[in-house]
Amino acid sequence: MTYCLGILLRSGLVLASDSRSNAGVDQVIHVRKLAFLPVASGCSVAIMSAGNLATTQAVVSTLQEKSGSGLAGLDIAAAKTLFEVASIVGAALRAIAERDGSYVAAYGDAAASFLIGGQMAGEEPRLFQIYAASNFVEATDRSPFLQIGETKYGKPILVRALTIETSLEEAAKLALLSFDATLRSNVSVGMPIDLLTYVADSFSTGGIKTIEVHDPYWMALRDAYGKGLAALIDSLPTP
Amino acid sequence: MTYCLGILLRSGLVLASDSRSNAGVDQVIHVRKLAFLPVASGCSVAIMSAGNLATTQAVVSTLQEKSGSGLAGLDIAAAKTLFEVASIVGAALRAIAERDGSYVAAYGDAAASFLIGGQMAGEEPRLFQIYAASNFVEATDRSPFLQIGETKYGKPILVRALTIETSLEEAAKLALLSFDATLRSNVSVGMPIDLLTYVADSFSTGGIKTIEVHDPYWMALRDAYGKGLAALIDSLPTP
Repeated sequence: MTYCLGILLRSGLVLASDSRSNAGVDQVIHVRKLAFLPVASGCSVAIMSAGNLATTQAVVSTLQEKSGSGLAGLDIAAAKTLFEVASIVGAALRAIAERDGSYVAAYGDAAASFLIGGQMAGEEPRLFQIYAASNFVEATDRSPFLQIGETKYGKPILVRALTIETSLEEAAKLALLSFDATLRSNVSVGMPIDLLTYVADSFSTGGIKTIEVHDPYWMALRDAYGKGLAALIDSLPTP
Repeated sequence: MTYCLGILLRSGLVLASDSRSNAGVDQVIHVRKLAFLPVASGCSVAIMSAGNLATTQAVVSTLQEKSGSGLAGLDIAAAKTLFEVASIVGAALRAIAERDGSYVAAYGDAAASFLIGGQMAGEEPRLFQIYAASNFVEATDRSPFLQIGETKYGKPILVRALTIETSLEEAAKLALLSFDATLRSNVSVGMPIDLLTYVADSFSTGGIKTIEVHDPYWMALRDAYGKGLAALIDSLPTP
Protein backbone atom coordinates (compact mmCIF):
# COMPACT_ATOMS: atom_id res chain seq x y z
CA MET A 1 0.00 0.00 0.00
CA THR A 2 0.94 3.63 -0.31
CA TYR A 3 -0.14 7.02 0.85
CA CYS A 4 0.68 10.08 -1.24
CA LEU A 5 -0.78 13.51 -0.64
CA GLY A 6 -0.61 16.66 -2.74
CA ILE A 7 -1.75 20.06 -1.46
CA LEU A 8 -2.28 23.10 -3.68
CA LEU A 9 -1.89 26.45 -1.94
CA ARG A 10 -1.83 30.11 -2.99
CA SER A 11 1.76 30.14 -1.79
CA GLY A 12 2.92 26.91 -3.44
CA LEU A 13 2.60 23.17 -3.03
CA VAL A 14 3.16 20.54 -0.37
CA LEU A 15 3.78 16.99 -1.59
CA ALA A 16 4.32 14.02 0.70
CA SER A 17 4.69 10.27 0.20
CA ASP A 18 5.35 7.24 2.36
CA SER A 19 8.06 4.69 1.48
CA ARG A 20 6.61 1.20 1.87
CA SER A 21 6.09 -1.16 -1.03
CA ASN A 22 4.82 -4.64 -0.40
CA ALA A 23 3.70 -7.73 -2.24
CA GLY A 24 1.98 -9.52 0.61
CA VAL A 25 3.24 -9.06 4.16
CA ASP A 26 6.40 -11.11 3.65
CA GLN A 27 7.84 -9.05 0.82
CA VAL A 28 8.25 -5.50 2.04
CA ILE A 29 10.77 -2.98 0.74
CA HIS A 30 11.47 0.73 1.02
CA VAL A 31 11.08 2.75 -2.13
CA ARG A 32 11.09 6.39 -3.09
CA LYS A 33 7.71 7.45 -4.45
CA LEU A 34 8.40 11.16 -4.87
CA ALA A 35 10.74 12.43 -7.60
CA PHE A 36 11.27 15.42 -9.83
CA LEU A 37 10.49 14.98 -13.52
CA PRO A 38 12.91 16.10 -16.25
CA VAL A 39 10.68 18.86 -17.63
CA ALA A 40 12.00 21.92 -19.50
CA SER A 41 14.58 23.98 -17.65
CA GLY A 42 13.11 26.83 -15.63
CA CYS A 43 10.17 24.60 -14.66
CA SER A 44 9.71 22.43 -11.58
CA VAL A 45 7.46 19.36 -11.56
CA ALA A 46 7.39 16.42 -9.14
CA ILE A 47 5.59 13.10 -9.44
CA MET A 48 4.29 10.72 -6.75
CA SER A 49 3.35 7.10 -7.47
CA ALA A 50 0.92 4.52 -6.11
CA GLY A 51 0.04 1.02 -7.24
CA ASN A 52 2.05 -1.70 -8.95
CA LEU A 53 5.74 -0.88 -8.49
CA ALA A 54 6.79 -2.38 -11.84
CA THR A 55 4.22 -0.19 -13.57
CA THR A 56 5.12 3.01 -11.70
CA GLN A 57 8.85 2.49 -12.23
CA ALA A 58 8.30 1.72 -15.91
CA VAL A 59 6.26 4.90 -16.35
CA VAL A 60 8.78 7.15 -14.57
CA SER A 61 11.77 5.57 -16.34
CA THR A 62 10.03 5.92 -19.72
CA LEU A 63 9.35 9.59 -19.01
CA GLN A 64 13.00 10.09 -18.11
CA GLU A 65 14.31 8.24 -21.16
CA LYS A 66 12.02 10.01 -23.60
CA SER A 67 12.64 13.46 -22.14
CA GLY A 68 14.37 15.57 -24.74
CA SER A 69 13.66 13.04 -27.48
CA GLY A 70 11.36 15.41 -29.34
CA LEU A 71 8.81 12.61 -29.76
CA ALA A 72 5.34 14.18 -29.90
CA GLY A 73 3.19 13.26 -26.90
CA LEU A 74 6.09 11.49 -25.14
CA ASP A 75 8.64 14.21 -24.45
CA ILE A 76 7.88 15.99 -21.19
CA ALA A 77 10.80 18.36 -21.77
CA ALA A 78 8.77 19.76 -24.67
CA ALA A 79 5.60 20.28 -22.60
CA LYS A 80 4.58 23.91 -22.09
CA THR A 81 1.88 23.45 -19.45
CA LEU A 82 1.31 21.09 -16.55
CA PHE A 83 -1.83 19.91 -18.34
CA GLU A 84 0.46 18.74 -21.17
CA VAL A 85 2.77 17.01 -18.68
CA ALA A 86 -0.26 15.23 -17.18
CA SER A 87 -1.32 14.11 -20.66
CA ILE A 88 2.12 12.66 -21.34
CA VAL A 89 2.23 10.86 -17.98
CA GLY A 90 -1.26 9.48 -18.69
CA ALA A 91 -0.21 8.30 -22.15
CA ALA A 92 2.89 6.59 -20.74
CA LEU A 93 0.77 4.87 -18.08
CA ARG A 94 -1.74 3.71 -20.68
CA ALA A 95 1.03 2.28 -22.89
CA ILE A 96 2.59 0.32 -20.00
CA ALA A 97 -0.81 -0.90 -18.78
CA GLU A 98 -1.73 -2.10 -22.27
CA ARG A 99 1.61 -3.81 -22.70
CA ASP A 100 1.75 -5.56 -19.30
CA GLY A 101 -1.79 -5.64 -17.91
CA SER A 102 -3.01 -8.96 -19.29
CA TYR A 103 0.29 -10.70 -18.40
CA VAL A 104 0.25 -9.39 -14.84
CA ALA A 105 -3.43 -10.19 -14.24
CA ALA A 106 -2.70 -13.81 -13.26
CA TYR A 107 -0.41 -12.61 -10.44
CA GLY A 108 -2.04 -9.38 -9.29
CA ASP A 109 -3.03 -5.93 -10.45
CA ALA A 110 -0.81 -3.90 -12.78
CA ALA A 111 -2.77 -0.69 -12.11
CA ALA A 112 -1.05 2.49 -10.95
CA SER A 113 -1.93 6.10 -10.30
CA PHE A 114 0.04 9.31 -9.89
CA LEU A 115 -0.01 12.79 -8.48
CA ILE A 116 1.96 15.43 -10.32
CA GLY A 117 2.47 18.84 -8.87
CA GLY A 118 4.64 21.75 -9.82
CA GLN A 119 4.97 24.93 -11.76
CA MET A 120 5.67 25.48 -15.44
CA ALA A 121 7.11 28.78 -16.70
CA GLY A 122 4.23 31.21 -17.26
CA GLU A 123 1.78 29.23 -15.09
CA GLU A 124 0.70 29.21 -11.46
CA PRO A 125 1.53 26.10 -9.39
CA ARG A 126 -0.85 23.27 -10.36
CA LEU A 127 -1.63 19.78 -9.08
CA PHE A 128 -3.06 16.82 -11.00
CA GLN A 129 -4.16 13.29 -10.15
CA ILE A 130 -3.73 10.68 -12.88
CA TYR A 131 -6.13 7.78 -12.45
CA ALA A 132 -5.39 4.15 -13.30
CA ALA A 133 -7.46 4.71 -16.46
CA SER A 134 -4.89 7.40 -17.43
CA ASN A 135 -7.40 10.24 -17.42
CA PHE A 136 -6.82 12.95 -14.84
CA VAL A 137 -8.28 15.70 -12.68
CA GLU A 138 -6.85 18.93 -11.31
CA ALA A 139 -6.98 20.34 -7.79
CA THR A 140 -8.86 23.62 -7.44
CA ASP A 141 -9.41 26.22 -4.74
CA ARG A 142 -12.53 24.31 -3.67
CA SER A 143 -10.72 20.97 -3.44
CA PRO A 144 -7.10 21.91 -2.80
CA PHE A 145 -5.76 18.47 -1.93
CA LEU A 146 -5.52 15.18 -3.81
CA GLN A 147 -4.63 11.77 -2.42
CA ILE A 148 -3.69 8.37 -3.86
CA GLY A 149 -3.30 4.99 -2.18
CA GLU A 150 -4.63 4.62 1.38
CA THR A 151 -6.55 7.89 1.37
CA LYS A 152 -9.23 7.62 4.03
CA TYR A 153 -7.56 7.57 7.44
CA GLY A 154 -5.68 10.78 6.73
CA LYS A 155 -8.56 12.70 5.17
CA PRO A 156 -10.62 13.94 8.17
CA ILE A 157 -7.93 16.26 9.50
CA LEU A 158 -7.43 17.77 6.04
CA VAL A 159 -11.18 18.26 5.54
CA ARG A 160 -11.36 20.11 8.86
CA ALA A 161 -8.30 22.30 8.73
CA LEU A 162 -6.96 22.83 5.20
CA THR A 163 -7.86 25.53 2.68
CA ILE A 164 -6.00 26.91 -0.32
CA GLU A 165 -5.14 29.95 1.86
CA THR A 166 -3.29 27.83 4.44
CA SER A 167 0.41 28.72 4.65
CA LEU A 168 3.09 26.34 3.36
CA GLU A 169 4.37 25.65 6.88
CA GLU A 170 0.90 24.97 8.30
CA ALA A 171 0.07 22.75 5.33
CA ALA A 172 3.29 20.77 5.80
CA LYS A 173 2.34 20.27 9.46
CA LEU A 174 -1.17 19.13 8.46
CA ALA A 175 0.31 16.77 5.86
CA LEU A 176 2.44 15.13 8.56
CA LEU A 177 -0.55 14.83 10.92
CA SER A 178 -2.50 13.22 8.07
CA PHE A 179 0.35 10.73 7.62
CA ASP A 180 0.43 10.07 11.36
CA ALA A 181 -3.27 9.11 11.33
CA THR A 182 -2.68 6.82 8.35
CA LEU A 183 0.46 5.17 9.74
CA ARG A 184 -1.34 4.34 12.98
CA SER A 185 -4.15 2.52 11.14
CA ASN A 186 -2.46 0.80 8.19
CA VAL A 187 0.86 -0.98 8.64
CA SER A 188 1.32 -1.23 4.87
CA VAL A 189 1.99 2.53 4.87
CA GLY A 190 5.47 3.08 6.25
CA MET A 191 8.19 5.54 7.16
CA PRO A 192 10.21 7.43 6.10
CA ILE A 193 8.07 10.23 4.66
CA ASP A 194 9.40 12.22 1.72
CA LEU A 195 8.18 15.80 2.01
CA LEU A 196 8.51 18.54 -0.58
CA THR A 197 7.52 22.11 0.24
CA TYR A 198 7.51 24.07 -3.00
CA VAL A 199 7.45 27.88 -2.81
CA ALA A 200 5.50 29.43 -5.69
CA ASP A 201 7.67 31.09 -8.36
CA SER A 202 10.87 29.62 -6.91
CA PHE A 203 11.11 27.00 -9.70
CA SER A 204 13.29 25.08 -7.29
CA THR A 205 14.05 21.45 -8.06
CA GLY A 206 15.46 20.57 -4.69
CA GLY A 207 14.31 20.51 -1.14
CA ILE A 208 12.80 17.05 -0.76
CA LYS A 209 13.16 16.37 2.95
CA THR A 210 13.17 12.76 4.16
CA ILE A 211 11.60 12.39 7.58
CA GLU A 212 12.80 9.28 9.38
CA VAL A 213 11.07 7.62 12.35
CA HIS A 214 13.42 9.33 14.80
CA ASP A 215 13.31 12.78 13.22
CA PRO A 216 13.10 15.16 16.22
CA TYR A 217 10.40 17.39 14.72
CA TRP A 218 8.27 14.38 13.68
CA MET A 219 8.54 12.86 17.15
CA ALA A 220 7.73 16.15 18.88
CA LEU A 221 4.78 16.79 16.55
CA ARG A 222 3.24 13.35 17.10
CA ASP A 223 3.73 13.60 20.82
CA ALA A 224 2.29 17.09 21.16
CA TYR A 225 -0.67 16.26 18.90
CA GLY A 226 -1.44 13.03 20.74
CA LYS A 227 -1.32 14.69 24.14
CA GLY A 228 -3.21 17.76 22.96
CA LEU A 229 -5.94 15.64 21.39
CA ALA A 230 -6.33 13.55 24.53
CA ALA A 231 -6.66 16.73 26.59
CA LEU A 232 -9.13 18.20 24.10
CA ILE A 233 -11.33 15.09 24.10
CA ASP A 234 -11.14 15.03 27.88
CA SER A 235 -12.32 18.63 28.06
CA LEU A 236 -15.43 18.03 25.92
CA PRO A 237 -18.76 17.44 27.69
CA THR A 238 -20.09 13.86 27.82
CA PRO A 239 -23.61 13.07 26.51
CA MET B 1 -23.22 3.14 2.62
CA THR B 2 -23.37 2.69 6.34
CA TYR B 3 -21.27 3.23 9.40
CA CYS B 4 -21.85 1.08 12.49
CA LEU B 5 -19.53 1.02 15.48
CA GLY B 6 -19.48 -1.31 18.47
CA ILE B 7 -17.30 -0.66 21.52
CA LEU B 8 -16.64 -3.22 24.25
CA LEU B 9 -15.80 -1.79 27.68
CA ARG B 10 -15.27 -3.14 31.18
CA SER B 11 -18.35 -1.17 32.15
CA GLY B 12 -20.59 -2.19 29.25
CA LEU B 13 -21.06 -1.50 25.57
CA VAL B 14 -21.55 1.46 23.28
CA LEU B 15 -23.25 0.77 19.94
CA ALA B 16 -23.89 3.40 17.29
CA SER B 17 -25.21 3.39 13.74
CA ASP B 18 -26.02 5.93 11.05
CA SER B 19 -29.37 5.95 9.21
CA ARG B 20 -28.71 6.33 5.51
CA SER B 21 -29.49 3.63 2.96
CA ASN B 22 -28.95 4.30 -0.68
CA ALA B 23 -29.05 2.56 -4.04
CA GLY B 24 -27.16 5.10 -6.09
CA VAL B 25 -27.36 8.78 -5.18
CA ASP B 26 -30.95 9.20 -6.41
CA GLN B 27 -32.53 6.59 -4.16
CA VAL B 28 -31.78 7.51 -0.58
CA ILE B 29 -33.89 6.58 2.43
CA HIS B 30 -33.62 6.67 6.21
CA VAL B 31 -33.55 3.32 7.94
CA ARG B 32 -32.97 2.03 11.43
CA LYS B 33 -29.87 -0.16 11.56
CA LEU B 34 -29.76 -0.78 15.31
CA ALA B 35 -32.35 -3.01 17.01
CA PHE B 36 -32.68 -5.36 19.96
CA LEU B 37 -32.94 -9.06 19.17
CA PRO B 38 -35.62 -11.27 20.77
CA VAL B 39 -33.23 -13.38 22.82
CA ALA B 40 -34.20 -15.19 26.03
CA SER B 41 -35.71 -13.02 28.75
CA GLY B 42 -33.18 -11.69 31.23
CA CYS B 43 -30.69 -11.19 28.37
CA SER B 44 -30.02 -8.09 26.27
CA VAL B 45 -28.59 -8.28 22.73
CA ALA B 46 -28.64 -5.67 19.98
CA ILE B 47 -27.77 -6.04 16.30
CA MET B 48 -26.46 -3.49 13.79
CA SER B 49 -26.58 -4.04 10.03
CA ALA B 50 -24.57 -3.01 6.97
CA GLY B 51 -24.81 -3.99 3.33
CA ASN B 52 -27.75 -4.91 1.12
CA LEU B 53 -30.91 -3.70 2.84
CA ALA B 54 -33.08 -6.54 1.54
CA THR B 55 -30.58 -9.04 2.94
CA THR B 56 -30.23 -7.35 6.34
CA GLN B 57 -33.99 -6.95 6.74
CA ALA B 58 -34.55 -10.57 5.71
CA VAL B 59 -32.00 -11.77 8.27
CA VAL B 60 -33.40 -9.70 11.14
CA SER B 61 -37.02 -10.58 10.28
CA THR B 62 -36.13 -14.27 10.05
CA LEU B 63 -34.44 -14.11 13.47
CA GLN B 64 -37.57 -12.46 14.90
CA GLU B 65 -39.97 -14.93 13.29
CA LYS B 66 -37.99 -18.01 14.36
CA SER B 67 -37.42 -16.75 17.90
CA GLY B 68 -39.20 -19.09 20.28
CA SER B 69 -39.76 -21.67 17.54
CA GLY B 70 -37.52 -24.23 19.19
CA LEU B 71 -35.87 -24.96 15.82
CA ALA B 72 -32.27 -26.03 16.46
CA GLY B 73 -29.74 -23.51 15.16
CA LEU B 74 -32.44 -20.97 14.24
CA ASP B 75 -34.04 -19.99 17.54
CA ILE B 76 -32.13 -17.17 19.20
CA ALA B 77 -34.47 -17.32 22.20
CA ALA B 78 -32.93 -20.72 22.94
CA ALA B 79 -29.32 -19.48 22.72
CA LYS B 80 -27.40 -19.58 26.01
CA THR B 81 -24.32 -17.59 24.98
CA LEU B 82 -23.62 -14.68 22.68
CA PHE B 83 -21.39 -17.01 20.68
CA GLU B 84 -24.50 -19.11 20.02
CA VAL B 85 -26.47 -16.01 19.02
CA ALA B 86 -23.67 -15.07 16.60
CA SER B 87 -23.76 -18.58 15.11
CA ILE B 88 -27.52 -18.31 14.54
CA VAL B 89 -27.22 -14.85 12.96
CA GLY B 90 -24.43 -16.19 10.72
CA ALA B 91 -26.54 -19.19 9.71
CA ALA B 92 -29.51 -16.96 8.88
CA LEU B 93 -27.27 -14.69 6.79
CA ARG B 94 -25.80 -17.66 4.93
CA ALA B 95 -29.27 -19.04 4.16
CA ILE B 96 -30.49 -15.70 2.75
CA ALA B 97 -27.28 -15.15 0.79
CA GLU B 98 -27.53 -18.63 -0.75
CA ARG B 99 -31.19 -18.14 -1.59
CA ASP B 100 -30.89 -14.62 -3.11
CA GLY B 101 -27.22 -14.06 -4.02
CA SER B 102 -27.19 -15.36 -7.59
CA TYR B 103 -30.47 -13.60 -8.42
CA VAL B 104 -29.28 -10.27 -7.02
CA ALA B 105 -25.85 -10.46 -8.68
CA ALA B 106 -27.12 -8.98 -11.95
CA TYR B 107 -28.31 -5.85 -10.11
CA GLY B 108 -25.76 -5.43 -7.35
CA ASP B 109 -24.31 -7.11 -4.31
CA ALA B 110 -26.51 -9.06 -1.88
CA ALA B 111 -23.77 -9.17 0.76
CA ALA B 112 -24.35 -7.96 4.31
CA SER B 113 -22.53 -7.89 7.62
CA PHE B 114 -23.54 -7.36 11.24
CA LEU B 115 -22.34 -6.34 14.66
CA ILE B 116 -24.03 -7.94 17.63
CA GLY B 117 -23.37 -6.75 21.12
CA GLY B 118 -24.98 -7.47 24.43
CA GLN B 119 -25.00 -9.60 27.51
CA MET B 120 -26.44 -13.06 28.07
CA ALA B 121 -27.34 -14.27 31.57
CA GLY B 122 -24.19 -15.69 33.16
CA GLU B 123 -21.82 -13.98 30.74
CA GLU B 124 -19.94 -10.70 30.59
CA PRO B 125 -20.94 -8.21 27.87
CA ARG B 126 -19.59 -9.38 24.50
CA LEU B 127 -19.35 -7.99 20.99
CA PHE B 128 -19.15 -9.88 17.69
CA GLN B 129 -18.73 -8.97 14.03
CA ILE B 130 -20.40 -11.26 11.50
CA TYR B 131 -18.72 -11.10 8.11
CA ALA B 132 -20.45 -11.38 4.74
CA ALA B 133 -19.15 -14.97 4.64
CA SER B 134 -21.18 -15.60 7.84
CA ASN B 135 -18.16 -16.43 9.97
CA PHE B 136 -17.45 -14.09 12.84
CA VAL B 137 -14.91 -12.59 15.23
CA GLU B 138 -15.19 -11.25 18.76
CA ALA B 139 -13.87 -8.02 20.24
CA THR B 140 -11.24 -8.44 22.96
CA ASP B 141 -9.47 -6.20 25.45
CA ARG B 142 -6.72 -5.68 22.87
CA SER B 143 -9.13 -4.73 20.09
CA PRO B 144 -12.15 -3.35 21.93
CA PHE B 145 -14.00 -1.86 18.98
CA LEU B 146 -15.45 -3.31 15.78
CA GLN B 147 -16.75 -1.43 12.75
CA ILE B 148 -18.77 -2.26 9.63
CA GLY B 149 -19.51 -0.20 6.52
CA GLU B 150 -17.47 2.96 5.99
CA THR B 151 -14.91 2.19 8.66
CA LYS B 152 -11.79 4.18 7.84
CA TYR B 153 -12.54 7.88 8.36
CA GLY B 154 -13.74 7.30 11.89
CA LYS B 155 -10.98 4.94 12.98
CA PRO B 156 -8.01 7.24 13.78
CA ILE B 157 -9.68 8.94 16.76
CA LEU B 158 -10.64 5.54 18.21
CA VAL B 159 -7.13 4.16 17.73
CA ARG B 160 -5.72 7.14 19.60
CA ALA B 161 -8.13 7.48 22.47
CA LEU B 162 -10.11 4.33 23.18
CA THR B 163 -9.27 1.41 25.46
CA ILE B 164 -11.42 -1.20 27.15
CA GLU B 165 -11.00 0.81 30.40
CA THR B 166 -12.61 3.93 28.90
CA SER B 167 -15.84 4.90 30.70
CA LEU B 168 -19.21 4.49 29.01
CA GLU B 169 -19.74 8.25 28.80
CA GLU B 170 -16.27 8.91 27.34
CA ALA B 171 -16.72 6.07 24.86
CA ALA B 172 -20.10 7.45 23.76
CA LYS B 173 -18.42 10.81 23.18
CA LEU B 174 -15.62 9.17 21.16
CA ALA B 175 -18.19 7.23 19.15
CA LEU B 176 -19.93 10.49 18.19
CA LEU B 177 -16.60 12.12 17.26
CA SER B 178 -15.84 9.06 15.11
CA PHE B 179 -19.20 9.54 13.38
CA ASP B 180 -18.51 13.24 12.92
CA ALA B 181 -15.26 12.47 11.07
CA THR B 182 -17.09 9.94 8.88
CA LEU B 183 -20.08 12.17 8.11
CA ARG B 184 -17.78 14.98 6.99
CA SER B 185 -16.00 12.75 4.45
CA ASN B 186 -18.72 10.43 3.09
CA VAL B 187 -22.15 11.80 2.21
CA SER B 188 -23.57 8.28 1.93
CA VAL B 189 -23.31 8.05 5.74
CA GLY B 190 -26.15 10.12 7.21
CA MET B 191 -27.90 11.38 10.30
CA PRO B 192 -29.63 10.63 12.59
CA ILE B 193 -27.31 8.47 14.71
CA ASP B 194 -28.84 5.74 16.85
CA LEU B 195 -26.78 5.38 20.02
CA LEU B 196 -27.09 2.68 22.64
CA THR B 197 -25.15 2.89 25.88
CA TYR B 198 -25.47 -0.45 27.67
CA VAL B 199 -24.49 -0.65 31.35
CA ALA B 200 -22.98 -4.05 32.24
CA ASP B 201 -25.29 -6.30 34.28
CA SER B 202 -28.30 -4.01 33.70
CA PHE B 203 -29.81 -6.40 31.11
CA SER B 204 -31.71 -3.37 29.90
CA THR B 205 -33.48 -3.60 26.54
CA GLY B 206 -34.19 0.08 26.19
CA GLY B 207 -32.25 3.27 25.98
CA ILE B 208 -31.53 3.65 22.27
CA LYS B 209 -31.12 7.39 21.84
CA THR B 210 -31.66 8.91 18.40
CA ILE B 211 -29.41 11.90 17.79
CA GLU B 212 -30.82 14.22 15.14
CA VAL B 213 -28.85 16.87 13.23
CA HIS B 214 -30.06 19.61 15.56
CA ASP B 215 -29.55 17.73 18.82
CA PRO B 216 -28.05 20.35 21.18
CA TYR B 217 -25.36 18.05 22.60
CA TRP B 218 -24.32 16.86 19.13
CA MET B 219 -24.08 20.45 17.86
CA ALA B 220 -22.14 21.60 20.92
CA LEU B 221 -19.78 18.61 20.71
CA ARG B 222 -18.99 19.13 17.01
CA ASP B 223 -18.49 22.82 17.53
CA ALA B 224 -16.23 22.46 20.57
CA TYR B 225 -14.19 19.68 18.93
CA GLY B 226 -13.77 21.62 15.69
CA LYS B 227 -12.64 24.77 17.47
CA GLY B 228 -10.45 22.89 19.93
CA LEU B 229 -8.75 20.94 17.13
CA ALA B 230 -8.09 24.11 15.13
CA ALA B 231 -6.55 25.71 18.23
CA LEU B 232 -4.49 22.58 18.93
CA ILE B 233 -3.14 22.39 15.37
CA ASP B 234 -2.39 26.09 15.51
CA SER B 235 -0.41 25.63 18.72
CA LEU B 236 1.85 22.91 17.29
CA PRO B 237 5.28 23.90 15.96
CA THR B 238 5.77 24.06 12.17
CA PRO B 239 8.55 22.05 10.48
